[in-house]
Amino acid sequence: MKENVDVAIIMGSDSDLSIMKDAAKFLEDMGISYEMTILSVHRCPDAAFDYAKSLKDRKVKVIIAGAGGAAHLPGVFAAQVPCPVIGVPIMSKTLNGVDSLYSIVQMPSGIPVATVAINGAKNAGILAATIISTANEEVYKKICDYKASMNTAVLDKNEKLQKIGYEAYLNDMK
Amino acid sequence: MKENVDVAIIMGSDSDLSIMKDAAKFLEDMGISYEMTILSVHRCPDAAFDYAKSLKDRKVKVIIAGAGGAAHLPGVFAAQVPCPVIGVPIMSKTLNGVDSLYSIVQMPSGIPVATVAINGAKNAGILAATIISTANEEVYKKICDYKASMNTAVLDKNEKLQKIGYEAYLNDMK
Amino acid sequence: MKENVDVAIIMGSDSDLSIMKDAAKFLEDMGISYEMTILSVHRCPDAAFDYAKSLKDRKVKVIIAGAGGAAHLPGVFAAQVPCPVIGVPIMSKTLNGVDSLYSIVQMPSGIPVATVAINGAKNAGILAATIISTANEEVYKKICDYKASMNTAVLDKNEKLQKIGYEAYLNDMK
Amino acid sequence: MKENVDVAIIMGSDSDLSIMKDAAKFLEDMGISYEMTILSVHRCPDAAFDYAKSLKDRKVKVIIAGAGGAAHLPGVFAAQVPCPVIGVPIMSKTLNGVDSLYSIVQMPSGIPVATVAINGAKNAGILAATIISTANEEVYKKICDYKASMNTAVLDKNEKLQKIGYEAYLNDMK
Amino acid sequence: MKENVDVAIIMGSDSDLSIMKDAAKFLEDMGISYEMTILSVHRCPDAAFDYAKSLKDRKVKVIIAGAGGAAHLPGVFAAQVPCPVIGVPIMSKTLNGVDSLYSIVQMPSGIPVATVAINGAKNAGILAATIISTANEEVYKKICDYKASMNTAVLDKNEKLQKIGYEAYLNDMK
Amino acid sequence: MKENVDVAIIMGSDSDLSIMKDAAKFLEDMGISYEMTILSVHRCPDAAFDYAKSLKDRKVKVIIAGAGGAAHLPGVFAAQVPCPVIGVPIMSKTLNGVDSLYSIVQMPSGIPVATVAINGAKNAGILAATIISTANEEVYKKICDYKASMNTAVLDKNEKLQKIGYEAYLNDMK
Amino acid sequence: MKENVDVAIIMGSDSDLSIMKDAAKFLEDMGISYEMTILSVHRCPDAAFDYAKSLKDRKVKVIIAGAGGAAHLPGVFAAQVPCPVIGVPIMSKTLNGVDSLYSIVQMPSGIPVATVAINGAKNAGILAATIISTANEEVYKKICDYKASMNTAVLDKNEKLQKIGYEAYLNDMK
Amino acid sequence: MKENVDVAIIMGSDSDLSIMKDAAKFLEDMGISYEMTILSVHRCPDAAFDYAKSLKDRKVKVIIAGAGGAAHLPGVFAAQVPCPVIGVPIMSKTLNGVDSLYSIVQMPSGIPVATVAINGAKNAGILAATIISTANEEVYKKICDYKASMNTAVLDKNEKLQKIGYEAYLNDMK
Repeated sequence: MKENVDVAIIMGSDSDLSIMKDAAKFLEDMGISYEMTILSVHRCPDAAFDYAKSLKDRKVKVIIAGAGGAAHLPGVFAAQVPCPVIGVPIMSKTLNGVDSLYSIVQMPSGIPVATVAINGAKNAGILAATIISTANEEVYKKICDYKASMNTAVLDKNEKLQKIGYEAYLNDMK
Repeated sequence: MKENVDVAIIMGSDSDLSIMKDAAKFLEDMGISYEMTILSVHRCPDAAFDYAKSLKDRKVKVIIAGAGGAAHLPGVFAAQVPCPVIGVPIMSKTLNGVDSLYSIVQMPSGIPVATVAINGAKNAGILAATIISTANEEVYKKICDYKASMNTAVLDKNEKLQKIGYEAYLNDMK
Repeated sequence: MKENVDVAIIMGSDSDLSIMKDAAKFLEDMGISYEMTILSVHRCPDAAFDYAKSLKDRKVKVIIAGAGGAAHLPGVFAAQVPCPVIGVPIMSKTLNGVDSLYSIVQMPSGIPVATVAINGAKNAGILAATIISTANEEVYKKICDYKASMNTAVLDKNEKLQKIGYEAYLNDMK
Repeated sequence: MKENVDVAIIMGSDSDLSIMKDAAKFLEDMGISYEMTILSVHRCPDAAFDYAKSLKDRKVKVIIAGAGGAAHLPGVFAAQVPCPVIGVPIMSKTLNGVDSLYSIVQMPSGIPVATVAINGAKNAGILAATIISTANEEVYKKICDYKASMNTAVLDKNEKLQKIGYEAYLNDMK
Repeated sequence: MKENVDVAIIMGSDSDLSIMKDAAKFLEDMGISYEMTILSVHRCPDAAFDYAKSLKDRKVKVIIAGAGGAAHLPGVFAAQVPCPVIGVPIMSKTLNGVDSLYSIVQMPSGIPVATVAINGAKNAGILAATIISTANEEVYKKICDYKASMNTAVLDKNEKLQKIGYEAYLNDMK
Repeated sequence: MKENVDVAIIMGSDSDLSIMKDAAKFLEDMGISYEMTILSVHRCPDAAFDYAKSLKDRKVKVIIAGAGGAAHLPGVFAAQVPCPVIGVPIMSKTLNGVDSLYSIVQMPSGIPVATVAINGAKNAGILAATIISTANEEVYKKICDYKASMNTAVLDKNEKLQKIGYEAYLNDMK
Repeated sequence: MKENVDVAIIMGSDSDLSIMKDAAKFLEDMGISYEMTILSVHRCPDAAFDYAKSLKDRKVKVIIAGAGGAAHLPGVFAAQVPCPVIGVPIMSKTLNGVDSLYSIVQMPSGIPVATVAINGAKNAGILAATIISTANEEVYKKICDYKASMNTAVLDKNEKLQKIGYEAYLNDMK
Repeated sequence: MKENVDVAIIMGSDSDLSIMKDAAKFLEDMGISYEMTILSVHRCPDAAFDYAKSLKDRKVKVIIAGAGGAAHLPGVFAAQVPCPVIGVPIMSKTLNGVDSLYSIVQMPSGIPVATVAINGAKNAGILAATIISTANEEVYKKICDYKASMNTAVLDKNEKLQKIGYEAYLNDMK
């Protein structure tokens, strides 16, 4: 495990990895240190709780936790660690992720989980970065730049639409 | 804590007690020993995990766990203890207990929770008794008697309805 | 029909077989005897009720019942037999299994069905095994071993992730 | 039990009686003979199946069955009896009757239940009467009259609204 | 249009035809006369209402109406015609047919629609036949035969499963 | 009936009047002429269709239609009349208005209904006014004034909150 | 930007374009001038608000806004512009468009959005045309013609069905 | 407005104040400076956007935004301000807050809102404090103390339950 990281990304199963990697990528783009771990409070609870305690001891600043179905990982980590925990509801096969969403967002009074959209791992990365940025001017600037680039990207698309019309635009998208 | 009990009833908050007591009452009627505990995997996780380990060490046979909202208690105990865990989704104020139900029943492969109806604490007690009864002839007979008494109760109600008609019956119910 | 089995697996249609086989496989792994039957309380009610009575007479210990849509099989068997009945909501084409889940889990007071996740047949097998294990030391040990093997499997996956990183890991999963 | 009735009204619990009485009242208004019974396929299955068989033997023409939660009564009767079965989903405390509706309407291919609205017992009575009316000119005329009276009732209300305006109308409704 | 038919099958769009044909096929099997019509209360309301009146004049005994989304066809016909109307909620692309189901089954007091499962056109045909059978001994016998054949079909499947086991059975299903 | 009105407000039942009056009140405030009618496409279909045709003949500009449950009124009027139809889903007792919403908003291609929020009759009135205002400078100005007054009302509330603090503010609200 | 247009079509992302183009096509068929813009209140809020103000200044008559997920575009434009705003909920990947629908239709009192069906962009175009038609005789006639052509199209389909039967009809559809 | 605050609490209507005050109270307990504002992006959009820009200029660290129904306030502020935005879905009258939840949590990629439970304003305050605590040792300690006090409170309740039993405990709760 890396000594000093700002963010810990955890997930309950490697089947969540193809979604959760988007959080990692965004943190890399922002130059924020992170570590990524597969750990289940259901399948390896002792290791999970040991890891939670180590996150607290090492003063990791933000946790991003993704899980699907009866998704307990984010809430159980939020119980153990005083830092902000961001929950990513992973879309499930049978209930479209409503089960994941409800079991992450509806936490009882006292133990919040900062929930993002179903499969919203990139947004979890962004949210973690904004949290870091509250005390890190460099990250703050990068987030402002990121927002500006999103702004430009939409304007560019609109300009293209105005220039070539919707039929040509749709053809280009194929 | 009592030394030897067959069933442990746990709940995340004393606000669940008015529902969960129904499980206790049924076990008392069946003459099954139990203990009842308020413990939260969110608010007092260490005590909860210690208690889970003690349940395993003491070879408690069945666990009944009630929780509402993002209801993690049953699943987290099922992760720690090899015995059957029965989950009672407690009706929540905002989502009518659908959140509780989904976060209890939709457990991942490997860690089942035997889920009953929303607010179905009495049924959790009955289910625990049927599990005990698989190796306990005395309890088995009591369950058969309980089923027979339910049978009779409905037949009595029907007989009354046939005798006095629905208007008089409804008057009696007021 | 086999003379002495611990578990009976029933399903309403052979279209449920590809899901329900997972319960059978787990029981085989645990060395637990079982029988598997296709029977519908809607299409062949008399045969179903005769079978239910035979399960009671033969003192089968646990029933696993899978059904989809307006899923009545688990509840109707729970009405007839005093042993624990585990219900598996089969995912339906039109409502994603919410109909199956509600019509299995929301049983009235007096007649519980131990409900697992939608399509959770393997978990039904595990739950049956834990019920058997409450009075069977050998099965109890196998379940502890199974839990330990799940634990190791996750830790191995995490170790791999730490070693090769998420990009290589995702490549390996393809 | 009455010898010859056209319609049998059944319900799973006397708590459904205050809703189901509306079916009886409509049949009385139409002069259609009926009997009303409290019987549960969960609590008194043998009596329920005996009764189902008697309905078949006595050639009762239509069955109206009301049930709530995991509502199996209408479907299980439809399995046993070749006549039309009308299902009334009773509104449940926790899930607003969605559970009742799904477990009645989503019947598998081969065994339909003619489902009406949640708590729609009066409509079940009307539907039974229209079924009877397909071979009974007298009932057919009464249904036409009933439809005409509904027509007039709305027109009268509208006439009143036009005459006195909405404020006076709303005052009259208090 | 055929002169004398017992059942009218209507649907709002030819995109419903691949589902609704199952109702027609069952009626053919039962030897029940029917006619099938594409008519929309939204796209050709005048023709639809003329047709509704003709159904009433010709004393058609049962109407089967299929529609999807905001599905008004069954309810609007039920308003116009005193005979039983069976509604088939067609599965929609965006809401899985929940919209179709709610807009068919939740009819106001006075105007029932006998609703079957989402995409349950075959069951609509069966229900129509059972309604016809209340005054037609020949159809009644055919329905009894149909129920017996369903019964046998399940028993045959079960016998096969017992003989060859689930793995071979599943192989045969591919 | 009034000779020349801009807006027709219709509802399926006088039980919707306490909600639908809010549309009327807003139109009065805007000085827009309207008429209000209770008419059901289910209970008095002929009168409803005659009325729909009269609305078309009299060139009424906008229709506001409120209905609950299987709410067909707005869609059936939209089928008959070429002017914009605004639908108000009335909150239902059993399904909280989700049934009303789905059966109004999910109209098939070709026949839109402009749907507002559940019980959103006032917003229906506002929407009707904005439609009128597209060719009526006077109404346009009144709508701009109305928007300005909403703006001021919130700013006043905020000013009060800043002045007296949330505790005093909450006391004032009691 | 075109100088004088009657309708503005906006969408939050070019991924909505393949749906939203149907609104544009219908307006073209009706000969109604429009402009189409990609603009996000989330990604380029300043440009979006500038554009909203320009729509108000240029007295554009109707706005059609499509958005998915937490769909704020229609409501935020309705807040800024006094003309009618039509909202198109775009079907989302995870929640089937229920999220889009709720976040568009459930607007607070004072700020209506005229909501059409999920993915109902063509209906949004039709609704915009009907609004224009309230003060434009030419468009009014085209809408009447469009309704007549829909009427004919269904009657033609029905005629074909009557001629060749459902099997041949279904073969033709392949 | 106060010069230097760490947290801004905003809500769309004073009807949300009785819920949102819980966030303020927690921040007071933690000694974190905040300001509270009623502002609507629908009713006073210009003031809302000016305020959003001032929050950015004044480098407020965290925003807590509560809104109900089609709840756009949190997302629209998250678009304008680079700091973390916490969304509180307010329970709505008609859809129990599901509409509020979906329109807050399902934000598009790029613009996260850290969503807490329906009506979870206190948890929003706690989450804001944990974010502040990532760079504020004093707040960090207070959060650790708060977690410890929750821990003790549950243990005390459990001790009481063990001492007096559930019947006496329930009596005390009345």
